[in-house]
This record gives sequence, structure tokens and C-alpha cells, in this order.
Amino acid sequence: VLQVQVLYDFEAEPGNNELTVREGETLSVLNQQVGGGWIEAQNSRGQTGLVPVDYLQVCLSTCLSYLSVRSPSLRPPTRRSSSWPPPREGPTSPPPLPPHRLSPSPPPSSRSLPPPPSLLTVSPPPPSLLTVSPPSPPSSRSLPLPPSPFTMGEVGPVWLYPQSPLDCEVTDPKKGSKMYGLKSYIEYQVIPTSTQRPVNHRYKHFDWLYERLLEKFGSAIAIPGLPDKQVTGRFEEQFIRGRMERLQGWMRRMCRHPVVCQSHVFTLFLTYQDQKEWKLGKRRAERDVAVGQMIFSLMDPEAPEMDSVEVDQKYEQYSRFTKAMDDGVKELLGVGQTHWKRCTGPLPKEYQRIGEAFINLSTVFSSSGYQGESTLTDALTSAGTIYQEVAEIVAEQPKRDLHFLLETNREYKGLLGCFPETLAVHKAAIEKVKDGDKMVAAGRISTQEKTTMKQRLSCMSYSLQAEMNHFHSNRIYDYNRVMQLYLEGQVKFYEEVPL
Amino acid sequence: VLQVQVLYDFEAEPGNNELTVREGETLSVLNQQVGGGWIEAQNSRGQTGLVPVDYLQVCLSTCLSYLSVRSPSLRPPTRRSSSWPPPREGPTSPPPLPPHRLSPSPPPSSRSLPPPPSLLTVSPPPPSLLTVSPPSPPSSRSLPLPPSPFTMGEVGPVWLYPQSPLDCEVTDPKKGSKMYGLKSYIEYQVIPTSTQRPVNHRYKHFDWLYERLLEKFGSAIAIPGLPDKQVTGRFEEQFIRGRMERLQGWMRRMCRHPVVCQSHVFTLFLTYQDQKEWKLGKRRAERDVAVGQMIFSLMDPEAPEMDSVEVDQKYEQYSRFTKAMDDGVKELLGVGQTHWKRCTGPLPKEYQRIGEAFINLSTVFSSSGYQGESTLTDALTSAGTIYQEVAEIVAEQPKRDLHFLLETNREYKGLLGCFPETLAVHKAAIEKVKDGDKMVAAGRISTQEKTTMKQRLSCMSYSLQAEMNHFHSNRIYDYNRVMQLYLEGQVKFYEEVPL
Repeated sequence: VLQVQVLYDFEAEPGNNELTVREGETLSVLNQQVGGGWIEAQNSRGQTGLVPVDYLQVCLSTCLSYLSVRSPSLRPPTRRSSSWPPPREGPTSPPPLPPHRLSPSPPPSSRSLPPPPSLLTVSPPPPSLLTVSPPSPPSSRSLPLPPSPFTMGEVGPVWLYPQSPLDCEVTDPKKGSKMYGLKSYIEYQVIPTSTQRPVNHRYKHFDWLYERLLEKFGSAIAIPGLPDKQVTGRFEEQFIRGRMERLQGWMRRMCRHPVVCQSHVFTLFLTYQDQKEWKLGKRRAERDVAVGQMIFSLMDPEAPEMDSVEVDQKYEQYSRFTKAMDDGVKELLGVGQTHWKRCTGPLPKEYQRIGEAFINLSTVFSSSGYQGESTLTDALTSAGTIYQEVAEIVAEQPKRDLHFLLETNREYKGLLGCFPETLAVHKAAIEKVKDGDKMVAAGRISTQEKTTMKQRLSCMSYSLQAEMNHFHSNRIYDYNRVMQLYLEGQVKFYEEVPL
Repeated sequence: VLQVQVLYDFEAEPGNNELTVREGETLSVLNQQVGGGWIEAQNSRGQTGLVPVDYLQVCLSTCLSYLSVRSPSLRPPTRRSSSWPPPREGPTSPPPLPPHRLSPSPPPSSRSLPPPPSLLTVSPPPPSLLTVSPPSPPSSRSLPLPPSPFTMGEVGPVWLYPQSPLDCEVTDPKKGSKMYGLKSYIEYQVIPTSTQRPVNHRYKHFDWLYERLLEKFGSAIAIPGLPDKQVTGRFEEQFIRGRMERLQGWMRRMCRHPVVCQSHVFTLFLTYQDQKEWKLGKRRAERDVAVGQMIFSLMDPEAPEMDSVEVDQKYEQYSRFTKAMDDGVKELLGVGQTHWKRCTGPLPKEYQRIGEAFINLSTVFSSSGYQGESTLTDALTSAGTIYQEVAEIVAEQPKRDLHFLLETNREYKGLLGCFPETLAVHKAAIEKVKDGDKMVAAGRISTQEKTTMKQRLSCMSYSLQAEMNHFHSNRIYDYNRVMQLYLEGQVKFYEEVPL
């Protein structure tokens, strides 16, 4: 059961099935899918009722996305009633500890409409997260710190990984149709290891999930693109199998990410019970405003504020590394694709033709009318047959080894493509913080706000390091595996050739 | 020592170091290189002296080209003196046996100039050999038959092979120059197994030899072309080595031919003692008129006249076979050359690039700043190194196996290219003979001439069969060898690849 902490006091309105909660209290979530910015929770005394999502904080290491900061001015949430949720009389006080703590999300300021996220007034130019506009700091804070999404590993900050890793299978593509058969589509079964219960999804649902994850986590987490859309030939067997394989790869990678895999929207995608739940969940996720750089304000690293020189160096290193790896991966993909074409096209065709030429010569020689050449014609025929077998083996081989090498590198190309923007956002944040003193002097921000900015930057740095470390550990695992499989495949190839 | 038979009586002119000989007498040749249409010979009584070459007949199986029928009207031979060689009073009688005997070459009709070859007045249209115009048949014949150039083997007529096969090496190309260095050329050493003594030849000498052999034997024997001439880049190391190798291949093939290898011109080319002998021999060979279809008149098969239906069938079979093999060889050459280019060009370049990409990724990964990936980077580096080795092995492999397969097929392409014309000549002869009865009825030829034509055709057929059988036995030998070497090379390749 998901445990959440209450950030701000909330008084239940009688008759609305709500639950009165106090700042610092721990609740168990009973139903996350009530919708409209509400969840059903139970307190330690066994009392249950609805509580505004925004009054609660979830351990980010368990799931960043459980926290929803609604922005009704952009997309009004579905309200249970016009008098809900309860209004707040100003934001709560910021936590006194640790020193680099970010401002927590304030509660909605009116019962009828939740307030715009008051902690961060998004004002251009980006990076908007650092353009702090007042909410006054929360007036009091007595609750324990929410658990950090990070922990310190040997390599520095790392995400906290769930105890049982999630995985899923994308399988069994089926043609479906709508509008009395006028519109056709392919529906895949997605089976998560958590529930073992298949749910159905079309490509456009994956695309929707991708958009959600990108919007929500894109500033902190590498969310690679989906396999390319294709309009023509999309009902062809081969295309469907290829797309399914890549969707599977994409889903697996998302499952492996400790933050993504525990997010509400991802859980919804994998475990929705029926169409109603799916549709409600979709609507809710689309209204999620705790997205983009906002998520950094929800993180709460316990480690000390990072040294700015160190941060600069780290960013420089990440930038160089991801650029260099991106180049390397593209180079390997380039030559790999060329090699693929040659190994599946002209090369086996040549072996085939060499085989044919030998067999043909054998036939011609047999017609010579000359005696005693059966040894030669037999040898030619068998050499010809061998070369035709070689042709087949050569043509099939790339599917056995090069395929996985290329697919893995394609995935990494997608992942690496996410970093330049992420790094640019982070670097811009660094520049902003460097201007902090001037902004204070010019009266544009307060000293407190400058401190908050620095804390938030530190949080971004932890987040980026955790993400880079996640990337590195996955990279080492993936490349160890792919190189092993590739080389094994190649060894088998040279052994199998019937010469 | 070469034994020759005297075809016609010859009276020595006193004081000229000549030898009087009688028709049917057997002589031993002491010196073939006297020049000017003369040889030095010894009779059974030990007397020695000069005898006109044209008065002598050599066993064709030993060497067709020892017999020179001079045509002074075309190219006057160098005379030792104005009174040489002695005049003849009309041709000798044809041999009574066997029934399909061809007219022998007549002796020169005057002492000052030998007569045009009187047995076959060449009159258009071709095939000229069958357009018999009178010389009156030789008046008497008592000498034993010259030995046949053929013998009957299990497969039909075969050439008589010399007891010790000839071979030669073409080696040690050296740059030479003429005209004070204004003109440069490459000179090769040619070392025949017979003398083990190197002689020097430029490409143009090989070309001259080719022209002589083609002219003399081209109607009966497949004389493949020389490696292509090339004007630019002909002093480049690689070109010189390639040309030398092909000249070697061409010379070896000529050495293996029992008729060619024993011919005067070929012996001259391989064993001349000095420039004077070479120049005299060249001049003599250029004046040889026992060339082209003429050589059929010098052959004397002992086997019975061939059945015309059988001959038709044989020709049809040869025609089909050589055409089919020519197609087969060209097909193999086509794909082999494509494969060669791929295996020496793009394919190893790809392996090289794959290797580089792995090594590059290894370097990038090493710069990650992340711990514990030395196993992976080591594996990537070693995979990269392996692929660079594979690249080299792949690029070198064609030189080890495909090269010989292609060179052999190139040689056969050259040989096969000779057959269409040979067969066309022979087929035209068949047609002529078929018209023989009409020509007799029209009074255009005598019954005797028609018989001679038939005999000559039979001789041509034996010759062609002997040549086809020579071709087949060489083909089986060569292709057995080349396939064995090719497959061994390929096996080694797959074993050597360090994966």
C-alpha cells in the first residue's frame, strides 16, 4: 500500500466523504483513481475518506508521479462538487531542514478551484523553474522529511530502485477495427510482471504514454522516442513484428527506470482494469501539472548542496561523454546498417551465384562426353551446394547477431538524444544561479529566493547525476550483454559455415 | 636427336656443303638453326650436309612446326647462295596408303626459289584447304609413312604426348632501356625445364610468339590470347607482377601442348643461344608457310576415315559444350570479379569500421568517469582489434584462393574463345565435302580430288578430336586442382578468423 505524508492541514467538509488530516500525518492510499485531484486514503486510526492530492507528498523514490499539482487555469480538473477541494489560507511554512530544501508544493487556495501552483510561477524566459515568484514560504513545518528519491552510492547520487524490478512483455499483435470496419488498427497485448494480467494497447496509446512521460519527466530523465510512426505498410507482418519488438524494448527500458516505472501514468498504462479506469486515468494524467522542471521542486535530496565548480565539471563531463557516445553509437549504427544491407543483400546473392556457377559448370562438364570426370563434377556440385548453404547462412546471420547489436544501439541513440536538451536546461539553471547575487542586488529576488534557487539547482544536479548513473549502469549491463551475444553469434557463424 | 624422313630426292651441289638424299631415307637433324630454309643433317652412313627443310617430313606428333613449307613468292627466304636450294622436277607421287592420306607437301620447284606449296593452291573462298586445284598427284611413293601425330586413346584420337613434359618459369622482371634511356621496357627471364638456361624476353616477344603460334596452329589448336596489353601504368610493380604471372600461365599452357611445345618457333623462343640465332629464327618463323589450315595436310592419321554423321554429331557436341562452358566460365568470372571487389573493398572496409567503432566506444566508455566498466571496455577493445584483424584476413583472402580460381577461369575463357572459329572452319569443311558429288558432276573437281577432300576432312576431325580430348583432360586436371585449392583456402579462412 502506498504511504503518503500530509503536507498541510485539511478540514473535511461534512457529507462529502472527506477525511480531515493534519500536516505530518501518514496515510495509506486506498484508491488513487478517484480523479479530479482527489484520492481516497486511510489514516492510522482506520478512518477513510477523500483528501486533495496536492496536500500530500509521496516518497519520490517510490513514485514521482503520485504527486499531482493541478493547474486548473490551464486545464480545469473534473470537480466532484463545486465546493471542492477546500481552500487554504496561504502556503505552509518551508521545512527548516535540510538547508538546501526546496519549497514544497502549496495546497490549493480555494475550494472551488485549486490554485495555480504557487511555488513556481512560470514566467518566461526559461528555465522557468528558477524564476521564483512569491508564494510566501509555508508558515510552519513540523512533519518529517519526505524520503529522498536519491541515495548516495559509490558513484555518487543514484535513484532509489524498487525492490522488485518491473518488466513487461509486448506480444500478440491483433488487427482490430472501428467504425464498422472502416478503420483498422493493430492492438498489442502488454503483460506486466507485476500483475501478469494482459492489457491491450494500440500504437497511439504508447505514443500517448510517451508524450506524458516526456512532458512529466523529460527535464530529468531520458525518455527515448518511440519507434517511428509509419503510415504505409503498417499492416504488413514484418512491420508489425519489428514495431512490436521495438515497443517491447521501449517498454522494458521504461520499466527499468525506477522513477518512471512507479509513476502513476505508467502504472495506469500497465494495469488499468477497464476502459472506464483507463479513460479517467488518461484524463487525469493529461491534467497533471507536476511536469517538466516542476518535478525538481518535488525532490528533496538529503545530501549537502553541491559545489558549483564540481557541478560545472560534472555537466561538462556528461556533455562530452554523451556527445562522444552519441557519435560512437551513430558511427556503429552507420557501418552496422551498411554491413546489414551487404550481408543480407549482395553478399549472399554472390554466394548464391557462385554456388550456381559451380553447379552449372558441373552440369556442363557432365555433358562433355569425356570419361572419368565424375569426381570433378561431384566436387563441383557439392561445392555449389555448399555455397548456396553459405548464402543462406550469411543472409540469416545478421538477424541472429547484428540485429540485436543494432537494436541496442538504436535504443541508445534514442536515449542519448535526450541529453543535450536536459543538459542545456541544467546549464541555463547554473547561469541563472550565478546571476543570483546581481538579481538580489537589483531587488528582483530576495536572498531567501536566491537560496531556494541554489537549493533547487543542487537538487537538479543530484537528479542529473542519479540519471547519469542510471544511464551508465544500464549502459554497462546492456553493452556487456550485446557484445557477448554478438561475438557468440559471430563465432557460431564461422563454425557453422559448412566448409 | 630429331629423325626426319626425306620426301623427295635432292642432289647436293658440289662445294656447298650439301647432302644428297633419296626419297624415303631417314636422316638425323644436327642443326635446325642454319636458317634460310636449310638444316644440317646426317644420313645413316654418317655423311653430313645441308638439306632443304622442305624436302623433309618430321613426325607431327613430335613437332608439327619442324616442317616448313616455304612460300618465296610471299616472303623470299634468305638464301645461302643464289643456286640454292636445288630445283625439283615436279611433285613426288602421293603415298599409296592409307586410303585417306593427304597430299604431301611438294618440294621446291626451282633451285633459286622454292615453288609455292603445290599441293594446295589456295583459291578463295575459304576454307581454302578444300578447294583443291591441280597439282598432278606425286608420281611415285615408296617411303614409309610418317608417324601419325595422333594415337587412339580410350576417348578417341589423342595427341601423342612427349615423354618428358616441358614446363617453364617466367620470372625476374627487369627494367631495361634503349635509345640512351629514352625508351624503357620490362624484360622477363624465361627458364625452360629442358635447358634450365634462362632467356630474356619482352612482352612484345611473347606477343610475337603468340602471333606465330596462332597463325600456324590456330585452325587446329586452341591458342589463347596473351594477357591484355596495357599502355599506362605498365611499369608499376603490381601490374608487372600480374602480367608476369599471366605470361607464366600462358607459357605453361603452351608448354603442356604436345604439338606446340615441340614446334620450331616455340623451341626457338625458349632455347635460343644468342641474339643472332634469335633474329635468324624469328625471320625463319615469320616466313613459315606451313600455317593455318595447311597443317592439316601435313597430318597423317592412320585411323580409318570418319563417318560423316558421327563427325557432325561430334562437332555439334563440341560446339554445344564449348559454348556452354564458355557461358559457365563467364558467369563464374562475372560473379567472382564482383565478389573479389566486394571482398577486397567494401567488406573489409566495413569490418575495419566496425572494429574502429568498437574501439572508439571503448575509448568513450573509458571516459565515462563511472566505475567498474573495465571488463566491458577491455571486451570492446579486443572485439575491435579482432574485427580489424578480420578486415585484413578478409581483404587478403581473395588473393589466396579466389585469385587462382579466377585466373584459371580467365585462362579457360581465353581457350574457349578459340573454339568457335575453329569449329566454324571445320563445319565449313564439312559442308564443302557434302557438296563434293555436285562439284564432281559439275566437273569442278575430279573424283580423286573429292576423295582427297574427304580424307583431309577426316584428318581435320581427328585433329579436332585430339585437341578436344587434350582440352578435356587438361580441363579436368585444372578444375580438380583449382577447386581443391579454392575450397582449402576457404576452409582455412573460416578457421583463421580469430573469433
